Amino acid sequence: MKSRAAVAFGPGKPLEIVEIDVAEPNAKEVLVKILYTSVCHTDAFTLSGEDPEGVFPAVLGHEGAGVVVAVGDEVTSVKPGDHVIPLYTPECGECEFCLSGKTNLCSAVRETQGKGLMPDGTTRFSYNGEPIYHYMGTSTFSEYTVVNEINLVNIDKEAPLDKVALFGCGVTTGLGAVENTAKVEEGAVTAVFGLGAIGLAVIQGLKKAKAKRIIAIDMNPDKWELAKKMGATDFVNPSEHDRPIQEVLIEMTNGGVDYSFECIGNVEVMKAALEACHKGWGESIIIGVAGAGKEIHTRPFQLVTGRVWRGSAFGGVKGRTELPGMVEDFMNGEIDLDSFITHHLNFTDINEAFDLLHKGESIRTILTYGE
Amino acid sequence: MKSRAAVAFGPGKPLEIVEIDVAEPNAKEVLVKILYTSVCHTDAFTLSGEDPEGVFPAVLGHEGAGVVVAVGDEVTSVKPGDHVIPLYTPECGECEFCLSGKTNLCSAVRETQGKGLMPDGTTRFSYNGEPIYHYMGTSTFSEYTVVNEINLVNIDKEAPLDKVALFGCGVTTGLGAVENTAKVEEGAVTAVFGLGAIGLAVIQGLKKAKAKRIIAIDMNPDKWELAKKMGATDFVNPSEHDRPIQEVLIEMTNGGVDYSFECIGNVEVMKAALEACHKGWGESIIIGVAGAGKEIHTRPFQLVTGRVWRGSAFGGVKGRTELPGMVEDFMNGEIDLDSFITHHLNFTDINEAFDLLHKGESIRTILTYGE
Repeated sequence: MKSRAAVAFGPGKPLEIVEIDVAEPNAKEVLVKILYTSVCHTDAFTLSGEDPEGVFPAVLGHEGAGVVVAVGDEVTSVKPGDHVIPLYTPECGECEFCLSGKTNLCSAVRETQGKGLMPDGTTRFSYNGEPIYHYMGTSTFSEYTVVNEINLVNIDKEAPLDKVALFGCGVTTGLGAVENTAKVEEGAVTAVFGLGAIGLAVIQGLKKAKAKRIIAIDMNPDKWELAKKMGATDFVNPSEHDRPIQEVLIEMTNGGVDYSFECIGNVEVMKAALEACHKGWGESIIIGVAGAGKEIHTRPFQLVTGRVWRGSAFGGVKGRTELPGMVEDFMNGEIDLDSFITHHLNFTDINEAFDLLHKGESIRTILTYGE
Repeated sequence: MKSRAAVAFGPGKPLEIVEIDVAEPNAKEVLVKILYTSVCHTDAFTLSGEDPEGVFPAVLGHEGAGVVVAVGDEVTSVKPGDHVIPLYTPECGECEFCLSGKTNLCSAVRETQGKGLMPDGTTRFSYNGEPIYHYMGTSTFSEYTVVNEINLVNIDKEAPLDKVALFGCGVTTGLGAVENTAKVEEGAVTAVFGLGAIGLAVIQGLKKAKAKRIIAIDMNPDKWELAKKMGATDFVNPSEHDRPIQEVLIEMTNGGVDYSFECIGNVEVMKAALEACHKGWGESIIIGVAGAGKEIHTRPFQLVTGRVWRGSAFGGVKGRTELPGMVEDFMNGEIDLDSFITHHLNFTDINEAFDLLHKGESIRTILTYGE
């Protein structure tokens, strides 16, 4: 079938809206009509060409929501008409990782997904007869996309898809990093580096966890208002200090924070976030994705004296098991998604959504495919 | 009073056995007659001059045991005649760290201890009227030493001091890193880098924790026999492989280890130990002390995909609270100390004990002060 799609034909180039061909789903695959998608920094990172695993041409996009159109013969968990959120972190329920009880990093389709392919080693997208690669198992920048059954979560049909689309990445990642990865306890003193969607979601998670102090850190003071709305108690602008930010935080907190979160992807900030932790027990969680080949570094003394360095992917959330509950929490008013949505655009204006993200003007732009 | 002591007069020089003057203990201090001491790599590290905090001239030594000779007016937990082990990690029971329940890193005397001074900012040791610095709050290389009450644990008088002296550092560190820091569970797949006293104690701790697989890693195959006796199940010599040791371990274990322990102090080994951990849940514990200015490094992706980087100091053990129980465990045959003791020498042959350590010929040499 034909589908409108925003195709990344090469690194560094704007996306092109073209009509691509989408093949039928295989036995364990699902054809989804995406109704809404948003743009995340990871899409921008891959589009820039800096992502060493990026392949072109590709249909990017990994934060969206839609409706099931058709399913393969072996698909049992969704049927046409169901409302779904594509998951770049799948959940097969059967691999060593899913069965471990210790991680959400399902390995079932890892190899092919990382290469932009479906599990049979081919693609369902093509343009002028040439294959177009998938991306993160989701490719929400095509109106019709083919996704593995294990990369989809079936959600409440009452939930507004133009909002819960955000559970596809940033919000879930931030909330989950607090609850699943850091397991922040009531009364904790915390710091959040970077106030994009993930950082703001971390702040929201920290407020839910009843952290005593939530220090929001960003070079852009325009982010402060939204951070405060989410629950931040303090704001620090590193550009206003002429010494390392970890020293500023240690002084502010009389010893360092109990938990810090890096939501940028800058390895020097990751170092600062770790070193801002309290001796003896402070834990730092890396969420941001760093550039190719970049390494974190610190003196091992930082760890020997009790700090812990962790990371979090998709907030440690097992999407198929946990997202329906998060959707319910949103419906019950326990999770705020609306504040993340700063802009609405038509899907065809997707490059403008990238521009808004790059300029730091948007948190999330919801792109609407329309009829 | 006069005391025989092995004084480090300067970096890189052999210790000199001289008669020093030892002043009376202050109100919260204790005069201890050390009966046995051993030599640890940390003493050698400081003596080499590489320790940026090392000060000279000093009485080194931090693994020993002795008998209380005299106590200051305010000392309540020990009295003359009590058997004690000096603790370089004190336990005041009152500071933010002791009260946290999360760490053993008592801060009560940290500042002065790190500078080789008693809490009043002076020293109790002198030679020809010139002050000699303390070391790690213990200075067991003097027959008579002055130690803060909070740096001493009172132990069972039935325990053989020539063996339990080892609880002063390496053995406690290794056992504690497994139990307190990593909290290794039954059936775990583990790797231990470096088979000195700490690495061997980690292996013993892993065996106690019922780890399924204990992979011992060292360039020196002579260490294998003792590692096996302690409980190691596999031995890997990195010099027999022409690829990174983390790759060898990941292949051996079909995905990586659940827990790894760095017991050397080499930042590149620390990186390998982390990267040898299983995606999703593997945890690496840094125990070794790295050279001044050295930094650990790895791609943040290693953490984002679920590995955890920790460190451990004195095995996370609160000495005054926990060491009496460990001494009992030894008396009941649950902890093997004898296997660590490869040599016995008179205290006056202390430089030979350093030589044996440097050559990798000894695990621990027990030095006897004698009458």
